[in-house]
Amino acid sequence: MAKQDISVLSGMRDFSPEEVFRREYIFHTIKTVFKKYGFVPIETPAIERLSVLSGKYGEEGDKLLFNVFNSGSADEWKDGTFTPDKALRYDLTVPFARYVVNHRNDLTMPFKRYQIQSVWRGDRPQKGRYREFTQCDADIIGSDSLLNEAELILIYHEALSMLGIRNFKIHFNNRKILNGLAEWLGMPEKFTDLCIALDKWDKIGKAGVQKELLNRNFPNALSNQLLDILDQPLGIEQKLELLQKMFVTSTEGQKGISETESILKYLKRYGFIPDNLILDLTLARGLDYYTGAIFEVTVQNAGVGSIGGGGRYDNLTDTFGLKNVTGVGISFGADRIYDVMNEQGLFQNLSVNPTKVLLINFDEDCLESVLKMASELRTHGVACEVYPQTTKKLDKQFSYADKKGIPFVFIIGSEEMEQGTVKIKYLASGEQSTHLRATVIPYIIQQIQDLNL
Amino acid sequence: MAKQDISVLSGMRDFSPEEVFRREYIFHTIKTVFKKYGFVPIETPAIERLSVLSGKYGEEGDKLLFNVFNSGSADEWKDGTFTPDKALRYDLTVPFARYVVNHRNDLTMPFKRYQIQSVWRGDRPQKGRYREFTQCDADIIGSDSLLNEAELILIYHEALSMLGIRNFKIHFNNRKILNGLAEWLGMPEKFTDLCIALDKWDKIGKAGVQKELLNRNFPNALSNQLLDILDQPLGIEQKLELLQKMFVTSTEGQKGISETESILKYLKRYGFIPDNLILDLTLARGLDYYTGAIFEVTVQNAGVGSIGGGGRYDNLTDTFGLKNVTGVGISFGADRIYDVMNEQGLFQNLSVNPTKVLLINFDEDCLESVLKMASELRTHGVACEVYPQTTKKLDKQFSYADKKGIPFVFIIGSEEMEQGTVKIKYLASGEQSTHLRATVIPYIIQQIQDLNL
Repeated sequence: MAKQDISVLSGMRDFSPEEVFRREYIFHTIKTVFKKYGFVPIETPAIERLSVLSGKYGEEGDKLLFNVFNSGSADEWKDGTFTPDKALRYDLTVPFARYVVNHRNDLTMPFKRYQIQSVWRGDRPQKGRYREFTQCDADIIGSDSLLNEAELILIYHEALSMLGIRNFKIHFNNRKILNGLAEWLGMPEKFTDLCIALDKWDKIGKAGVQKELLNRNFPNALSNQLLDILDQPLGIEQKLELLQKMFVTSTEGQKGISETESILKYLKRYGFIPDNLILDLTLARGLDYYTGAIFEVTVQNAGVGSIGGGGRYDNLTDTFGLKNVTGVGISFGADRIYDVMNEQGLFQNLSVNPTKVLLINFDEDCLESVLKMASELRTHGVACEVYPQTTKKLDKQFSYADKKGIPFVFIIGSEEMEQGTVKIKYLASGEQSTHLRATVIPYIIQQIQDLNL
Repeated sequence: MAKQDISVLSGMRDFSPEEVFRREYIFHTIKTVFKKYGFVPIETPAIERLSVLSGKYGEEGDKLLFNVFNSGSADEWKDGTFTPDKALRYDLTVPFARYVVNHRNDLTMPFKRYQIQSVWRGDRPQKGRYREFTQCDADIIGSDSLLNEAELILIYHEALSMLGIRNFKIHFNNRKILNGLAEWLGMPEKFTDLCIALDKWDKIGKAGVQKELLNRNFPNALSNQLLDILDQPLGIEQKLELLQKMFVTSTEGQKGISETESILKYLKRYGFIPDNLILDLTLARGLDYYTGAIFEVTVQNAGVGSIGGGGRYDNLTDTFGLKNVTGVGISFGADRIYDVMNEQGLFQNLSVNPTKVLLINFDEDCLESVLKMASELRTHGVACEVYPQTTKKLDKQFSYADKKGIPFVFIIGSEEMEQGTVKIKYLASGEQSTHLRATVIPYIIQQIQDLNL
């Protein structure tokens, strides 16, 4: 018999205890910030009707859906009568839209929801791209106030700062400004073409975009002039002044400027405009979906693409028969954030091991005292383990503590039992001390606090 | 066009904010106890190779697996050349076994892991049975010490007590005792038949089991005698004494008694034997898997079957080519625990709404002060919302706070702005008070504490 292949599937991952703790730290931090701003969580099933998901992500997206069927229907696919009718969650936006329509009578509008769940895509796996990954989304629907845009920028800033991420930038722009630029080029009908070309600036540079625009029949001279304007290293205020001059006759462009100014005004009133907020006039974020402000978060030199994005949309639930649901949302890419934090060494000081004390399990006699001690520690909230196997091999037990990163080892042998004491070894320093049983609990709690374990 | 069906699939569920918070409370509580006993988390992918999962859950289980395939392979199932090769996680035990084999060189043995993840089964949905549900498992592998069994009983007791669940019982037994009983009946080779029959006691009662045993050709008189013995309302010690007499010539039976006694001895040393621990000699837990102690947790009159189960096994990873990995584990059925807690009214005092303050968003002028106030509240860790829409409609804003369960409303109108004050309304009592801006933060923090919000 050939050896069975039991490796995890390509693009899928096992997570070790350390990785789970680190991932939970990321989720917890993002959640904490979401909640601080009044967002509440929902969850949707991993499996949706195929009809709910298909046609929502473009032709390419449809191909990346994972279909699901019961083993019970195997006969059907064998005889060719099988029609797939279920698929795995591909993102959190479409299920959210479906949720809103299904539960519209129970929702308090405006509805501020966050959602942190896995999604699955049959994409070609590569660095930073997995077939199962976790999205962390926050959306406000039922409100067109630009306060929401301002708060979402603050949430990006606060959550990523709390995680300690360095050199991240929050890019923002407005689809209406892009409309204005298309008008300025004299080609408002070519809005989409302009978006596609500009969006590639990151990857192909100014010269590349220039070529793209020519290929798409934009006027040469004006295009060059536009790209020169966009290429200038200007601050937000200066960029807006410039646009103001360009958009004298563009109603949409004017709206874009005014929305952007409102967002900035609100940020100021909240206390500050983040230093790393960039009005990025080349940011376009896909094609059809967004209608107002758009966001994207990048990390310099991280090599993982964006770690977040979002924007304002006008028609979240149209496709499910509920009209005029406006909203604005952002997404954090938790898996890429993980990779960036790892590269920036931000997990090094993260204490993740819950167990603080290992109690040596020497022989049956000592267990009398050891188990009582373990019980007392746990009662006082100190996570501890009795070495799970009774053995005279002390080396093995110390090595277990060491490998698991357990800071303290308690030894209660026959001598200690007689004297009513506990011998404590602090593994980091090798320091050993003996304590009366009556004083050992407050001592160890103090140590854990002092050493920040 | 026919109206599109966008309901969630049968057996799948959307979770509202309230439900998510309640579920998280359950997971958090169970996790806290797992960690206190030194368990660390792992996670495995939702999608596994079909070859890893199939054949592991019996013929019935195989039929309940959800298969997965890329949309990209749709051509293959159309022309009949398609062979399914991926499936969704069906439980946490098989993926754990696979994990152990894949990562055996990185694991510190004994390995104490917990795992809290969704599983999917194409079962017929009914009360308390879903097609997507969450399991919470803890296992220790690489140790045959009965300390582990004792600790798992304590974990059940502690976690379910922390959740406040009333009338739960922890049943335990030992497969070796069941072996002894089969020997006592003179039919050691019919061990499996005996297990199948006894396991039905809950459902079909003593008379039903009697019939089952006759049908399976157990001797009538001895069977009746056995059932009379098992039917006696005896305490743990008395049951063990009785078995002691019955198992004089049964080595396996003797081992079962001695293991049970050790577990009880350890529990005593840890401090106590839970009142609700029952030596349930009719408990058998399935057929082939377990080899030593077995556990099951039930709740009286809950009508949901067991809310947890587990036991000792000798050959976790045999099927993946790694021999002699002994272990013992338990599982919590989080969805059933949820249903029980709901029925017992245990969620009523659970404060789940993070937002403590709604700031009225009256007009652009007041926003000047309102946004600054919101910022200060958040800086001090008080979750708050500015009503997301600027509107003169106060009713709407108060009703929003009310529906969302936000306890306090802050009003900063033109009068308050002039006087440097904030008007605070506590919705539960309707009480209204006015505070200087300088004192409002400490005031509200104190209120939140005092009112336990």
